[in-house]
Amino acid sequence: MLGIDPGLTRCGVGIVDVAPDRSAQLVHVGVVRSDPSEPIEARLALIATGLRAVIAAHRPDVVAVERVFAQHNRHTVMGTAQASGIALLVAGESGLPAATHTPSEVKAAITGYGSADKRQVQAMVARVLRLDALPRPADAADALALALCHAWRGGPAAAASGPLTPAQRAWADAERLSRR
Amino acid sequence: MLGIDPGLTRCGVGIVDVAPDRSAQLVHVGVVRSDPSEPIEARLALIATGLRAVIAAHRPDVVAVERVFAQHNRHTVMGTAQASGIALLVAGESGLPAATHTPSEVKAAITGYGSADKRQVQAMVARVLRLDALPRPADAADALALALCHAWRGGPAAAASGPLTPAQRAWADAERLSRR
Repeated sequence: MLGIDPGLTRCGVGIVDVAPDRSAQLVHVGVVRSDPSEPIEARLALIATGLRAVIAAHRPDVVAVERVFAQHNRHTVMGTAQASGIALLVAGESGLPAATHTPSEVKAAITGYGSADKRQVQAMVARVLRLDALPRPADAADALALALCHAWRGGPAAAASGPLTPAQRAWADAERLSRR
Repeated sequence: MLGIDPGLTRCGVGIVDVAPDRSAQLVHVGVVRSDPSEPIEARLALIATGLRAVIAAHRPDVVAVERVFAQHNRHTVMGTAQASGIALLVAGESGLPAATHTPSEVKAAITGYGSADKRQVQAMVARVLRLDALPRPADAADALALALCHAWRGGPAAAASGPLTPAQRAWADAERLSRR
């Protein structure tokens, strides 16, 4: 599962391997950057090249991209939308199905409620993936959260059922804690 | 000069050859379409393929893309922004410089004022290119207007000066008429 948090300057990419019991493993996390001083057409080409390299190296089955809204952050939203178009294009050209999720869908899937703050989401991602530290930068953490969200909400793993695994219990516990 | 009016369902493409005296000839006009019932990643891939085919067939020197604003047409603006990202990406990957122009820059360059209506822009494009009819659909006409705008505003032809050519006179006359 490849998650992409689209952005012109920093495009977060995170790959997780999610088992039918919903437990997850970190495969890859990183950021594709482009230099703001470069022309836009060169920046988008750089982002496409970076995303294609991640797909070629890790061969994900599905790509999840954060959905961009017109009303957010007007100043940068067009660049973010263009980067999301590149992410979806690269998925399509690689023959991979793509899905989009809103930030609140991601928050709800990861922490249990849609208005969780970024820090809570990151802490949960680190916990689920058994990382020693929060993934950095934030765009990379968001990409991992997206990948987990897609796996848990709609991926093939979502259809599986059964008793809680240790990872699920940790998730449910932390979810309860985060609601206090 | 390749002009692209980005859109998910219809992406207008227009190529014009502009002489140093600002006179212009139609080289190609058309629309790259994608089916709204297809998934977004397949639609963007189709648009990229269509635009690459136009570039391969006509080998333009420059690409001009309409600039998309967050505040317009909220419902479709994200798809339009994604399509514009694909247009810019294809330019960058073809090694072509790209420029963006706002709709009012295009109107001002073509008709002489930024609040001209679409019909006036189309009529002027038809006149400048000596077409028997208005180019159809509107997206294709907009793409031609963009290409002419870029050539006249900032292209190499813009630096040329000298007495008015017949095409320039026709343009100046029509501009005066359209202001009445």
